[in-house]
Amino acid sequence: MAVDTHITDAHAALLARFRDGVPIALARAISVVENERPGFQAFLHAVLAEGPESARIGVTGPPGAGKSSLVAEIATAFRKNEEHIGIVAVDPTSPYSGGALLGDRIRMNDLATDPRIFIRSMATRGSLGGLATTTKEVVDLMDAFRFDRVLIETVGVGQTELEITAAADTVVVVLVPESGDGIQAMKAGLMEIADVFVVNKADRPGADRLLKEIRQAMHLRAGTALKNVPAHHGADLSRVVKKERSTEPEPVDGGWAVPVLKTVAQTGEGVPDLLEAIDGHRAWLIESGELENRRRARARVRVRDVVERELRRVAWRSEVVGERLEGGLDAIVAGEATPYSVAADVLDAVLGRGATG
Amino acid sequence: MAVDTHITDAHAALLARFRDGVPIALARAISVVENERPGFQAFLHAVLAEGPESARIGVTGPPGAGKSSLVAEIATAFRKNEEHIGIVAVDPTSPYSGGALLGDRIRMNDLATDPRIFIRSMATRGSLGGLATTTKEVVDLMDAFRFDRVLIETVGVGQTELEITAAADTVVVVLVPESGDGIQAMKAGLMEIADVFVVNKADRPGADRLLKEIRQAMHLRAGTALKNVPAHHGADLSRVVKKERSTEPEPVDGGWAVPVLKTVAQTGEGVPDLLEAIDGHRAWLIESGELENRRRARARVRVRDVVERELRRVAWRSEVVGERLEGGLDAIVAGEATPYSVAADVLDAVLGRGATG
Repeated sequence: MAVDTHITDAHAALLARFRDGVPIALARAISVVENERPGFQAFLHAVLAEGPESARIGVTGPPGAGKSSLVAEIATAFRKNEEHIGIVAVDPTSPYSGGALLGDRIRMNDLATDPRIFIRSMATRGSLGGLATTTKEVVDLMDAFRFDRVLIETVGVGQTELEITAAADTVVVVLVPESGDGIQAMKAGLMEIADVFVVNKADRPGADRLLKEIRQAMHLRAGTALKNVPAHHGADLSRVVKKERSTEPEPVDGGWAVPVLKTVAQTGEGVPDLLEAIDGHRAWLIESGELENRRRARARVRVRDVVERELRRVAWRSEVVGERLEGGLDAIVAGEATPYSVAADVLDAVLGRGATG
Repeated sequence: MAVDTHITDAHAALLARFRDGVPIALARAISVVENERPGFQAFLHAVLAEGPESARIGVTGPPGAGKSSLVAEIATAFRKNEEHIGIVAVDPTSPYSGGALLGDRIRMNDLATDPRIFIRSMATRGSLGGLATTTKEVVDLMDAFRFDRVLIETVGVGQTELEITAAADTVVVVLVPESGDGIQAMKAGLMEIADVFVVNKADRPGADRLLKEIRQAMHLRAGTALKNVPAHHGADLSRVVKKERSTEPEPVDGGWAVPVLKTVAQTGEGVPDLLEAIDGHRAWLIESGELENRRRARARVRVRDVVERELRRVAWRSEVVGERLEGGLDAIVAGEATPYSVAADVLDAVLGRGATG
């Protein structure tokens, strides 16, 4: 039980077609994972046996920053080198902004007819304050399908953007002159996750000021960060990403100097520099050994996610638990128990201890 | 172990002062809960033994809808009746909008000098896609402190606003003419949670159109909803809130007719009608038995939250688990395992089964 790693016959057939590079097998696999069909974890186990290979590029930023246009530009440029590109676009299902975000998709649809580009749009469906585990699993599927690059676009609402590091090797943070001041962004943790900063819509007023603010904030941060650099190896995700940084355009002490670039996605201005920065970061990841650190950190997050998802499943499917819960709710309403005494009772059942009453 | 329900001596002393109504004891209790200090669950168990009493009013809506101003108006009005008011204001810690949201707080600070009003501002800290469990627990503390009303203000980003039903008895959804069309809002689940709709900043263009759209959307919904009304009793939260609704201003068949009101918080216009609607809803909750349904549904969510929080804690504190995890990560990096086989191994350790290798 628990996490099954034995693949079903039907999934074995799917896996064979998946490995042959049949796009419809990828689409089916994604659907199996997204819907958490029976055996989906065993399927993922089989798929992931060969390890990650794609360059995973995350693009995040506030609504309206032009991320989709930028992703479309990046994908188009990579395509010119005959690369195969996978794109995962994550839309938060906000009650207020749902429609507006979908409008953003239109430009990306131009790419949808290209057979070497595979686009998958996913709703976050109110999941765990970051990227849903299934979203990360879909990114893994794309990777295992052996796209040269997998682009992951997430809209920044709440904490989603901070978890992009749990899916991507290289994180591009996109801001626009209107999106508020750079210092504010720095405070909120974007600095820790950005491998490349982009000020998009740079033809608008305020672009240079934002650029300067980001650089200043990074300078301040670098000053303090250099004193407290932990060893990376085996550190957890939050520490791995808090790396040594410099404001100079050259790497210092083997660290990565985060480029701060200007683009105008609509005209393609600045996109070549962005592509160069992305490639440069990839080269640095491999050379420095940081890629392995990040993959290890990512594996840690995934194991945690899978274990917790399974614990929730184990906890609530048991009949004994169901009975104790219902009885407990009656007792709470009658003023004879609290959620804490009921939870203690339910936990005993889940963890196979005796009843405590 | 697990969820301890035995209160410590220090907490027993705190509890005594809390029950005496000493505001500083409330502040200390909130801090104990917010920081999940040892024994905080036992403290909550003791505090909640007497059951809920306050009228809990949730106010939610998009950033910039004027929720804080409206909450300030509501609190001021209740204060004129000598009521004691608790306010919990939940700020999402978005990297992009952090600053703007804080600006919204200024108006509420006028209230902070009133000894009968207790305000607590909380960050969501990237928690579980809704209201953090600790946030709901702070609302419980406010309730147990016997405020006449507890006002809970949440900003709608992602799914936070939908979970307000897990903390409030009466949910006021605030929209503004600028916040997009009513149909969109309806689609996204706001209709299920709203007990009262408010179009704030109603002196701006588009207010009447939004008002009309909301009413129309509710009419459409009521048409379908009436055919599928489930029994309420014991249903889970999502079903409990999906109640029979009517677009007529009078309750139909014992259901609640959701008022759609206009306000201008800055001038106080429309606020008396809002207060009346809130009081009317409370009366209906009690009369119809729906208050008990909602409390039961809330208890169910809380038990689930507490159990899952504890399962996570149990899972990750064990040394055996730690060793299996680290060894597993090494194996993943070496290409000899996947997160799924490691998760299976970790789960066996957590649930007290033998090693599977």
